[in-house]
Amino acid sequence: MKTWLEHNLLKLNFTDTMDQPDGFTRLSFSPEEWEARDEFIQIAKEMDLTIREDEAGNVIARWIPGSATEEKPAIALGSHVDTVTNGGGYDGVAGVLCGLGTVYQLKKEGFTPDRPIEVICFASEESARFGVSTIGSKAMSGMLDTEALAEVPDKDGVTIKQAMEERGLNYEESPKAERDAGDLSSFVELHIEQGTRIEKAGGEVGAVTAIACPIRLNIDIFGKAGHTGTTPMADRQDALVSAAELISFIYNRALAFNEENDTPLVATASTISNEPNVMNVIPGKVTVGVDIRSVSDGLKEKMAEEIRKKTAEIEDTFRATINIQTLVNNPSIFLDASVHKDLTLAAEQAGLNNFTLESGAGHDVMNMARKWPSGLVFIPCKDGLSHHPEEHASLDDLEKGVKLLAAYIKNKAGD
Amino acid sequence: MKTWLEHNLLKLNFTDTMDQPDGFTRLSFSPEEWEARDEFIQIAKEMDLTIREDEAGNVIARWIPGSATEEKPAIALGSHVDTVTNGGGYDGVAGVLCGLGTVYQLKKEGFTPDRPIEVICFASEESARFGVSTIGSKAMSGMLDTEALAEVPDKDGVTIKQAMEERGLNYEESPKAERDAGDLSSFVELHIEQGTRIEKAGGEVGAVTAIACPIRLNIDIFGKAGHTGTTPMADRQDALVSAAELISFIYNRALAFNEENDTPLVATASTISNEPNVMNVIPGKVTVGVDIRSVSDGLKEKMAEEIRKKTAEIEDTFRATINIQTLVNNPSIFLDASVHKDLTLAAEQAGLNNFTLESGAGHDVMNMARKWPSGLVFIPCKDGLSHHPEEHASLDDLEKGVKLLAAYIKNKAGD
Repeated sequence: MKTWLEHNLLKLNFTDTMDQPDGFTRLSFSPEEWEARDEFIQIAKEMDLTIREDEAGNVIARWIPGSATEEKPAIALGSHVDTVTNGGGYDGVAGVLCGLGTVYQLKKEGFTPDRPIEVICFASEESARFGVSTIGSKAMSGMLDTEALAEVPDKDGVTIKQAMEERGLNYEESPKAERDAGDLSSFVELHIEQGTRIEKAGGEVGAVTAIACPIRLNIDIFGKAGHTGTTPMADRQDALVSAAELISFIYNRALAFNEENDTPLVATASTISNEPNVMNVIPGKVTVGVDIRSVSDGLKEKMAEEIRKKTAEIEDTFRATINIQTLVNNPSIFLDASVHKDLTLAAEQAGLNNFTLESGAGHDVMNMARKWPSGLVFIPCKDGLSHHPEEHASLDDLEKGVKLLAAYIKNKAGD
Repeated sequence: MKTWLEHNLLKLNFTDTMDQPDGFTRLSFSPEEWEARDEFIQIAKEMDLTIREDEAGNVIARWIPGSATEEKPAIALGSHVDTVTNGGGYDGVAGVLCGLGTVYQLKKEGFTPDRPIEVICFASEESARFGVSTIGSKAMSGMLDTEALAEVPDKDGVTIKQAMEERGLNYEESPKAERDAGDLSSFVELHIEQGTRIEKAGGEVGAVTAIACPIRLNIDIFGKAGHTGTTPMADRQDALVSAAELISFIYNRALAFNEENDTPLVATASTISNEPNVMNVIPGKVTVGVDIRSVSDGLKEKMAEEIRKKTAEIEDTFRATINIQTLVNNPSIFLDASVHKDLTLAAEQAGLNNFTLESGAGHDVMNMARKWPSGLVFIPCKDGLSHHPEEHASLDDLEKGVKLLAAYIKNKAGD
């Protein structure tokens, strides 16, 4: 199994070695994403799966065990093969690979499911190119707003519509990728954890209960530019000093939240821009982007509210003017409890130590969960590193993922 | 006099009104700098001054009161007409304008100096385009390193050499702009204060004793990038959080230095860059630029040393790795004490309240002072604002500048 996994991991990454100093770059609807997608199709065809490419660029590889079962709701597995810029070769690929590997394993064992099994390769999960994530799974679950997204550009001015049409898709037709509720009985995504909680808890796999969607704030801090050499310290309205106070506060409060509450919360000042950003000018305007996540929407709101209060205090102390804009405030998505139970049972049957946790990152499953009973399985990745050239999941852990998924399917599609 | 000043202020700024929402942009060796320089030449010619354009692009407008005095060392006034991007119309122009205005006033009064009087329009004082300042005055005082600077590019890749040649100069010849020590008996620059110390002290003009040249540090802070949603708070090595701690420290310590010491010091974290600067990634590397100034080189060193100690502490607390590079460490430049005394006397004779202070910013005079007895006079500017479209000096204050310079010349070049 590990030989099969290694061989096809390299194939899906279109490479001879996973050791890539610059990682992998397969942006949304790029030729590189499509190369990896073509590899997916080739592997699936070699396994005698039926291929359907939908209107949004998703590929559905279907194992139809017999004509009598063809019309039954399928069990679907899957993830994506696109990456961020200089990303890793496991985020997305692990799910697609283990999905295919599960079918490979079940076939090898001579297992015949009582309904079709699908492995889905979703198009364009990452937001790195257009700032819009999970385009393929949005389309499949009927959530794609083609009108709103058509003109969203990448950094070179190429729009989502243009990029999809460069890949031979008809943008206006992409909502037709939506599938009927009756098409699937459940959907399960396997993904690398992108954290280290499973490992720290002594687990081998993680069945996920919920996905913590972010509150995102854009905070504009207006001070007053002036010459660094001629403006006395006491007369300054330095926007970067105000920003520093805010960044420290967010970090320290988020740390404290995790001591005060049982449910984890993370809050990050992740982006900053400074004007004029010139060595001899006092910062006049600083913009900070803040990302707050917790499966507890109440905790997220509380953190955002404390940030608002702190900015009012900073306005007074540092004579700044601060505007806060809420860019995103998505409630957490709770995954299907019975699928979660099925996955923990499958882990047990596969002899794997399961650690139940929530996900701090969004995945294709969050869209699928709106329409179908859905679950998410994490496998560990080295040092929790992801979106990074050193992203790594071991063949052992990939194989454990396959064992869990195979056990799940045998339970749900067995006699 | 005010009518003359207003008329020629507009001419030098090549405009009908000083009220410009986007300010003025006359970058080093740009066509716009040369337009303003041509206006300078035209005004000087109308005043019967002899024009010499030197090899570095400086213009020397010379009032030769008679052939008998022609060979005597001249008294020179002057400044520059280039600006930063979206700068004001007074930084530089005020000195050139008041220099010409002084000659105009003295001629009107029928005063005949005992030696030539010069008004110099220096080329390219601002570092906004090439990151290199005071190119013209460096050349005149023999400090231009043409070899080192030739290939320094602007943001579009145009080098200093190319830019000078676009203005019709021969780059290799530019060191020939150096003048003999015997050419000038003294040099005085008038400049807007770019601060509010004169006004706050109840002064009308400011005779400057020294120029506080900066220590500049480039501080690279290495943390560890990771997913904002999946990396628990306690496991983070957030480079921006480390930077925030440092920025707050620099501000607070610089404030305290001014309470602990009589000599002012300013320290500014003025630039910042963040990698990858993406909403869902924890900052992995942050670079901060720090500018420290005081006429006390010892205080500057002490501040830099405290910053170094603080970074070591931050490395421990936040598990960061910090590298500090000293970009610039220029000792303060003390201006000629007797010229300072002459300028304070001239202020008194002109009935002006002088407030003696030091300069936090560099000016052409700092180069001239290395070769000739030199002085610097500040006039107030509104709210201390400079390098900004709202930069403003009143006609009253410009006129006071002319009165001071006229009194200075009458003392030094009178009978």
